[in-house]
Amino acid sequence: MKLSKKNLDQRLDHVYDAIVVGGGAGGLSAAIYLQRYRLSCLVIEKGRGRSFWMQDLRNYLGLPPTTPGRTLLQQGQEHFLSLAGDYLPGFVEEVHDEGDTFAVKVKVGKKDSIYSTLRAKYLVAASGVIDHLPQLDNMQNVFDYAGYNLHVCMICDGYEMGDKKCGLFVNTEAAINTAFVLNWFTPYITVFTQGLCEVSPEMRQKLQDHGYPLVETPIRRFLGENHEMNGVELTDGATIELETGLIAMGSHYHNEYLKGLDLSWKGGNLTTDAMCRTSHSRIFALGDLKEGLNQVSIAVADGTLAATAIWRDIRRVAPPRLWEEHLKQASH
Amino acid sequence: MKLSKKNLDQRLDHVYDAIVVGGGAGGLSAAIYLQRYRLSCLVIEKGRGRSFWMQDLRNYLGLPPTTPGRTLLQQGQEHFLSLAGDYLPGFVEEVHDEGDTFAVKVKVGKKDSIYSTLRAKYLVAASGVIDHLPQLDNMQNVFDYAGYNLHVCMICDGYEMGDKKCGLFVNTEAAINTAFVLNWFTPYITVFTQGLCEVSPEMRQKLQDHGYPLVETPIRRFLGENHEMNGVELTDGATIELETGLIAMGSHYHNEYLKGLDLSWKGGNLTTDAMCRTSHSRIFALGDLKEGLNQVSIAVADGTLAATAIWRDIRRVAPPRLWEEHLKQASH
Repeated sequence: MKLSKKNLDQRLDHVYDAIVVGGGAGGLSAAIYLQRYRLSCLVIEKGRGRSFWMQDLRNYLGLPPTTPGRTLLQQGQEHFLSLAGDYLPGFVEEVHDEGDTFAVKVKVGKKDSIYSTLRAKYLVAASGVIDHLPQLDNMQNVFDYAGYNLHVCMICDGYEMGDKKCGLFVNTEAAINTAFVLNWFTPYITVFTQGLCEVSPEMRQKLQDHGYPLVETPIRRFLGENHEMNGVELTDGATIELETGLIAMGSHYHNEYLKGLDLSWKGGNLTTDAMCRTSHSRIFALGDLKEGLNQVSIAVADGTLAATAIWRDIRRVAPPRLWEEHLKQASH
Repeated sequence: MKLSKKNLDQRLDHVYDAIVVGGGAGGLSAAIYLQRYRLSCLVIEKGRGRSFWMQDLRNYLGLPPTTPGRTLLQQGQEHFLSLAGDYLPGFVEEVHDEGDTFAVKVKVGKKDSIYSTLRAKYLVAASGVIDHLPQLDNMQNVFDYAGYNLHVCMICDGYEMGDKKCGLFVNTEAAINTAFVLNWFTPYITVFTQGLCEVSPEMRQKLQDHGYPLVETPIRRFLGENHEMNGVELTDGATIELETGLIAMGSHYHNEYLKGLDLSWKGGNLTTDAMCRTSHSRIFALGDLKEGLNQVSIAVADGTLAATAIWRDIRRVAPPRLWEEHLKQASH
């Protein structure tokens, strides 16, 4: 059931089979499978993750390509709740490994917050990433376009940018190299650094050899209407016409709560086996938190794998269920 | 576009980037991604694969749990065709490796069939499996219940069988062991061998210790109405009441067309790397054909992985696209 400050105390003595941190695509898929494996599962979701911001989910089989990410999440929540799973809007601050269980400290409520500790045998880390966006004075101006035609993922939306005039927004020189992959989809690329990084002479030459202008002046605002970005205005007053954009400014991993645990990392990603199990046998990591492609379909499959591995673990040590009635007959 | 005998000759000189054999969940996902990577893709689908038979797809994130498999397939076909992919109903009989391309021989049309050869740089094997069903005199009687409450996949439908009187239909002694996993979901298990295999004294004892009856008399027919199986009638006239069933009689792998190719197998499954690439660098295998869980979500993610790997291969050797207009300006 849906949990909140009001009814959370009902669950404080319960030990879940698994607590899933993050109610995005991976977390909800894991949660649905866990409930269907007759395990008890709690999803803790802080709200407004990456998939929430997707305006069109154009590459996930089974949904029309105009489906917003939040429709997927809503459907998944309903599906999970229909299987008698527990769902708590809240923010996981800390996880403590108690040996057989994890104690998960969660902040509930943005105003008059309360802090509670919930427990589970297994932890599923599915808290994902959020993309760094250009920091403008008026962030609403960025939100008006981000997730519409101002994209954050080339794998997802390269197709949408096909042969369009595209702004590539970066904050490091390394990220400028994105241009030389993005050009598979469109060669009409203008690179914007906003002066946030130095650009070496070699990179300037490479951009020039490709015909891709480099703009280092900071951006004042994105231009456009009805969530359709059509250019940028720079702080010097100049405007540059665009038809689409790709932000490649890195991501923030929502993994702070995992930092005190004994886990193996590769850069910002958790290392996992083929079933999404981390180096800690009772912690699984899904989707964007682990190595690999940051795609909805991958996260959904990861949820399937992690839930199945947890079920196998728990089932293998459970006593077999007998058909008692027949045993009694046989013994007469 | 949709291809048929009538318009297929338009494509005989074309070399696709990839031909996907099988238009199930994995194949359609790969195909959608491939088209979105601006690659040219042909899906060849023989019809009526495993997902077509699913009456309810209850564990795939984003779809209501009463969605039939064929709705997923229909949505995926439309999605793929909207991306200008080619879709051909047909049966792949043989694939010949020509070095840089594959020649794919396909039979089109069940009546007055024609045979054509289509070519692609990459081959995606997504032709899946089909479950062996009990062979009764009247197979329609089996089809009336298979995929409804007579299940073929415990991972998918164990939950639906929860605490119900369940028939387990097997054809080997090894498959009887399924009972000792199925009992996680329900202990009210009756095992039916139909006399198709010997059962050792040890296995008889184990079943007896669990209280699971063993029935070796062949089945005359399933009983029930409105696709709701409620028992079986044996050839000796006895009837046994059931509420659900699980068929565990193995699967037929649709992989005959791959047998002449140099590929690495593990049992009936193709060995693949993390991107679903087989031991042949231009052949990928998805979903049920490869090792791992036979789940829709896994197949869909496999499609994402294979398409991405193919795109990366092709992109890396393609010349960079330049913004020519700027180069001309610069040279003036």
